Amino acid sequence: MPQYKLTYFDLRGWAEPARQLLHLSHTPYDDVRIPMADTEKSWENLKEKTPFGQLPVLNVDGFDIPQSAAICRYLARKFGYAGKNPEEEAWADAIVDQYKDFSVAFKTLIFAARAGKPQEDILKIRYEIFNPSRDAYFEILNKILKDNKSGYLVGDGLTWADLVVADNLHSLEKLKALDDDNEDHQKLRKYVEKIYSTPDLEDHIATRMDTEV
Amino acid sequence: MPQYKLTYFDLRGWAEPARQLLHLSHTPYDDVRIPMADTEKSWENLKEKTPFGQLPVLNVDGFDIPQSAAICRYLARKFGYAGKNPEEEAWADAIVDQYKDFSVAFKTLIFAARAGKPQEDILKIRYEIFNPSRDAYFEILNKILKDNKSGYLVGDGLTWADLVVADNLHSLEKLKALDDDNEDHQKLRKYVEKIYSTPDLEDHIATRMDTEV
Repeated sequence: MPQYKLTYFDLRGWAEPARQLLHLSHTPYDDVRIPMADTEKSWENLKEKTPFGQLPVLNVDGFDIPQSAAICRYLARKFGYAGKNPEEEAWADAIVDQYKDFSVAFKTLIFAARAGKPQEDILKIRYEIFNPSRDAYFEILNKILKDNKSGYLVGDGLTWADLVVADNLHSLEKLKALDDDNEDHQKLRKYVEKIYSTPDLEDHIATRMDTEV
Repeated sequence: MPQYKLTYFDLRGWAEPARQLLHLSHTPYDDVRIPMADTEKSWENLKEKTPFGQLPVLNVDGFDIPQSAAICRYLARKFGYAGKNPEEEAWADAIVDQYKDFSVAFKTLIFAARAGKPQEDILKIRYEIFNPSRDAYFEILNKILKDNKSGYLVGDGLTWADLVVADNLHSLEKLKALDDDNEDHQKLRKYVEKIYSTPDLEDHIATRMDTEV
C-alpha cells in the first residue's frame, strides 16, 4: 500500500474531505497538522517546500499533489468515491466547481470578519455579496437533490462531491448562515445529516477536532 | 460516436479549451454560440434550461455537463489529454485549479473595466489585486515549466492543463498584461507559442474567431 501523508493546518478547512476519504477507505495516513498557535514560524519553513506555496498537500510515496479538489479527486478515484462512470465523474466535478465558485463569496465574508473590518462593512458584504451567492448556490443544490432522488448529489451513492458540499454546509451552520425558517436551508440540513450518518464516517465525525471552518 | 453539442456565448472565454480538445481529437461537434448582439434575449430563454444557469454546457447524447473545467476534464480523459497516469491527472487538475484561483483576480479586473468604473478604481484593482495575483501565478507556472523540462506543464506531452493555461495567457497578452521587459513573461510567451504550434491545433488557432477573452 502507498504511504500517504496529508499536510494542512490544524483545521477542518480545505483538508477535511480528503481526511474523510482516507478514513472511509480505512487507509492509514500521516495526518500532519501545522499547529495554529505556531503557524507563522512553522509555515514559513514549510511554505517554500510546497509545490504552490499553499496547503493542503498530499504526498503519495514521495509525490506531492497540491490543491484540495485535485487531492480529493485523486483519492476518490482510488477508493471508489468519484462516480460510477465518466458522466457521473464529470457531474461530481461540476458540483465541486460550483461550490468553489460560491466559496469566493464565502471567503470574502470570512476574511472581512477576520481582518476586523467595521461591522457596517461586514454586513454590507453579507447582504450584497455573500447572501445572493449563497441563495443561488443553495437553489442549485436543492434542485440537484430533488432531481436525483437518491439523497446523494450524484447517482445513487456517496461521492466526494457530497463530502465537499456537506463539509461547507457544516461550516455555514457554525457561522449561522442557515436559517431555521427557510425551507431550502432545512432540506440541506437534512442532507448533511444523511451524509454524516454514513457508516464508517460517523465515528470520524463524532471524534474529530471540529473547528469553525 | 456520441453526439457532442457545446453551447456557449460567441467568445473564446470558458469554452475555448473544450473546442480545442474536440478539434485536436478530430471529433465532429455542434458549436452552438449565443450571438453577443442578441445575448440578453437568447440567453434569457436558455438560462433556465441549463443545469446551473450558466454556460458553457456540453451535451453528450442528451446528457448535460456544466462547468468549464468539468467539461474539459471529461473530454481530455476521453481523448487522451488528461495525463498518462493518476498522478499526472492530479497534477493537471491542480494546475487548472491554481489558474482558477488566479482567475478570481483576473475577473475582478475585467468586470471593473466593463462596469465602467472610474480609471482610478481600475488602476487600484490592477496594482493591488490583479498584479500580485498574476505575479504569484506566473512564478508557479515558470517553476513548473523549469522543473518539468519537457516544455509542457505535465509529463512529456500536451494535456488539457496546457490548453487552459495557454488560452488565459493569450487573453492576458491581448489585455496588455504581459511586459516586454520581464523575463518571466517572455518565457510564458514562448510557452504559448509552443502549445499553439501543436500539429492539429495550428489550423484552429489560425482560423478561429479570436475575441479579447
